[in-house]
Amino acid sequence: MVKFADRMNQLQGSEIRELLKLTQQPDIISFAGGLPAKELFPVEGMKEAALAVMNENGQEAMQYSTTEGINPLREKIVARMKAKNGIDATIDNILITNGSQQGLDFSGRVFLNEGDVVLMESPSYLGAINAFQANCPKFVEVPTDNNGMIMSELEKIIQTTENIKMIYVIPDFQNPTGRTWPLERRKQFMEIINKYEIPVIEDNPYGELRFEGENMPSLKSLDTKGLVVFLGTFSKILAPGYRLGWVCASNEILEKYNFIKQGADLQPSTVSQLEVNKFMELYNLDDHVAKIKEVYGHRRDVMLAAMKREFPEGIEYTHPEGGLFTWVVLPEYMNAREVALECIKEKVAYVPGGSFFPNGGHENTFRMNYSCMPDDKIEQGIASLGRVLKAMMKK
Amino acid sequence: MVKFADRMNQLQGSEIRELLKLTQQPDIISFAGGLPAKELFPVEGMKEAALAVMNENGQEAMQYSTTEGINPLREKIVARMKAKNGIDATIDNILITNGSQQGLDFSGRVFLNEGDVVLMESPSYLGAINAFQANCPKFVEVPTDNNGMIMSELEKIIQTTENIKMIYVIPDFQNPTGRTWPLERRKQFMEIINKYEIPVIEDNPYGELRFEGENMPSLKSLDTKGLVVFLGTFSKILAPGYRLGWVCASNEILEKYNFIKQGADLQPSTVSQLEVNKFMELYNLDDHVAKIKEVYGHRRDVMLAAMKREFPEGIEYTHPEGGLFTWVVLPEYMNAREVALECIKEKVAYVPGGSFFPNGGHENTFRMNYSCMPDDKIEQGIASLGRVLKAMMKK
Repeated sequence: MVKFADRMNQLQGSEIRELLKLTQQPDIISFAGGLPAKELFPVEGMKEAALAVMNENGQEAMQYSTTEGINPLREKIVARMKAKNGIDATIDNILITNGSQQGLDFSGRVFLNEGDVVLMESPSYLGAINAFQANCPKFVEVPTDNNGMIMSELEKIIQTTENIKMIYVIPDFQNPTGRTWPLERRKQFMEIINKYEIPVIEDNPYGELRFEGENMPSLKSLDTKGLVVFLGTFSKILAPGYRLGWVCASNEILEKYNFIKQGADLQPSTVSQLEVNKFMELYNLDDHVAKIKEVYGHRRDVMLAAMKREFPEGIEYTHPEGGLFTWVVLPEYMNAREVALECIKEKVAYVPGGSFFPNGGHENTFRMNYSCMPDDKIEQGIASLGRVLKAMMKK
Repeated sequence: MVKFADRMNQLQGSEIRELLKLTQQPDIISFAGGLPAKELFPVEGMKEAALAVMNENGQEAMQYSTTEGINPLREKIVARMKAKNGIDATIDNILITNGSQQGLDFSGRVFLNEGDVVLMESPSYLGAINAFQANCPKFVEVPTDNNGMIMSELEKIIQTTENIKMIYVIPDFQNPTGRTWPLERRKQFMEIINKYEIPVIEDNPYGELRFEGENMPSLKSLDTKGLVVFLGTFSKILAPGYRLGWVCASNEILEKYNFIKQGADLQPSTVSQLEVNKFMELYNLDDHVAKIKEVYGHRRDVMLAAMKREFPEGIEYTHPEGGLFTWVVLPEYMNAREVALECIKEKVAYVPGGSFFPNGGHENTFRMNYSCMPDDKIEQGIASLGRVLKAMMKK
């Protein structure tokens, strides 16, 4: 008799991945995924990079390489984190991973025994919940408001909860809410963390995609005790298809991530690393990011304006200053999964918000992505969504 | 205070990966790694494939794709397993992974609770031990002889051991010993497995690299009850730098691997998959494999002849019919780690065998790789090794 590990009882397929399959029908207007706009990918530049790598380093590119990643790319990551996130690090603090999803998986494996407690924002990223779930932890949700995690609530929870092993946060343009923590909260957070000495996983896939307002320092840049593990990725500033992200942590912590990486898949792809590294030598990645920001910022404007116009009264949504998502809250009596089924009939898709709450509830919420649809599709999709909402709302 | 998960106490860096770093000094003759010969990589072909992918599918190549892998590559894998391993499967039985190391990691996570028992050949692949270790299982080693696992011993162990959750085996050109199970043992094995219904992880990275003798059917091809999980990889038949392997399993089992893949890193690299898929459309991979086999077979001959000539009496080694490794057994009073330190002084490296035994012991053994050194280096390295061995052996 085949018997699986107990952890398999906890795991189900990600609702988003299943939805993505459904929404791959070409006539669906999908606000469901978190996909970058593929029409902006620097295909010619990456082709040039691939050619150069195969001409200059073909044999090395196809061979095994070191677990932690190739040094030239780690150097570029160090320089970028310094410039964009104010982080002082050396390449010895960097492990290159298969996207930051692998950094999430490794974080769970490095810190969590069964039954240990993870704190996270309420709601939080579904993919992180999914990754941590494999270690069968308890999730405790820290209440949030429009400025992110509420620090007085965080401290209360820390004071009254046993076995907290880590805190997972997305302070910039959070997934799913699009919210960003102001500076004061970041400082308060680090004071609390330093006081209780709890490891923090700071997930920062969207930080560079700010359309308005002032850049905020990363938590890692405020970290004086080596408690913050920073997760970065090329998925949103370049392209996700190469599966390249990174972990930045103190030597003591990063060593553990390295051990996990060895057993998990030996090393990141040599070819992918060399190609992305070469692209960054040939081109200024900042120029590309500037282009993305302009388009996404515009699409956010189009979506928010359409929501304002098309949505009935009594529906709230966030105003993200960057990133890919806005978050919609329906009246409490409504169920966003039921609305989603109606929307699919009208060829519009989003992700119901309940899945972003590890302990359930909040079925009156949903997440909207604005990065990968052109203006006319956004207008059209929000109009359809507005009609469905109007039809389903109580008068 | 940062507190790691208990599993981190079990994990250390792989000795091989550490050795590989040491042996990257250009003047070392290394028989330590399991690296393919990089001079045989089809660099021009992969360059052509990369170009074609970026020209035809650049945007798709850089975008997210499905967890289980892209269909055209899964189809080619199904066809290849049918032709080479006699396996009947459909693409729904295939999950593409980051090399077969990720298949090993997932196997541990799918099947093993803490304290569960894994059976494996004694000795077995260090990377598998390392991957399973993260789940804190007990390893029970099944005795082997020159024909691989001894089936009477296997049955005895199954009858007297509780909580056996899986059996891990490498029936073809095993790592580290180079041994291959004859047909009769494979049939006996499947009879035992079917009787006790225990899941089997059949790791087959080297099966296509046979220099002499007759091809053996894979265990998976003899599997009538869906108990065998087959792990394949492009690392040894094409190149490891793309990090592409696969899991082939029954729908019931593969679903669990898919869940783990979603949380672990979402999906395999889209670019890598499309490039390898395109290469297989443009070229016949069999032609490339034929070239590899010819060179590796010749290098095996050179190494074995040199060992016969240069090694003192009283040292045994295997005669592999394929794959990358031969296995050396010194007299019991000798310690291969001590010999290795002397060898490093003479600029020659191998992997001491003790690490391949999950429960320790057998320090008089070591693993030799012959795939990635040219003839003259093999001759020179074995001569140095022979001198060290002669000097350290009791007269």
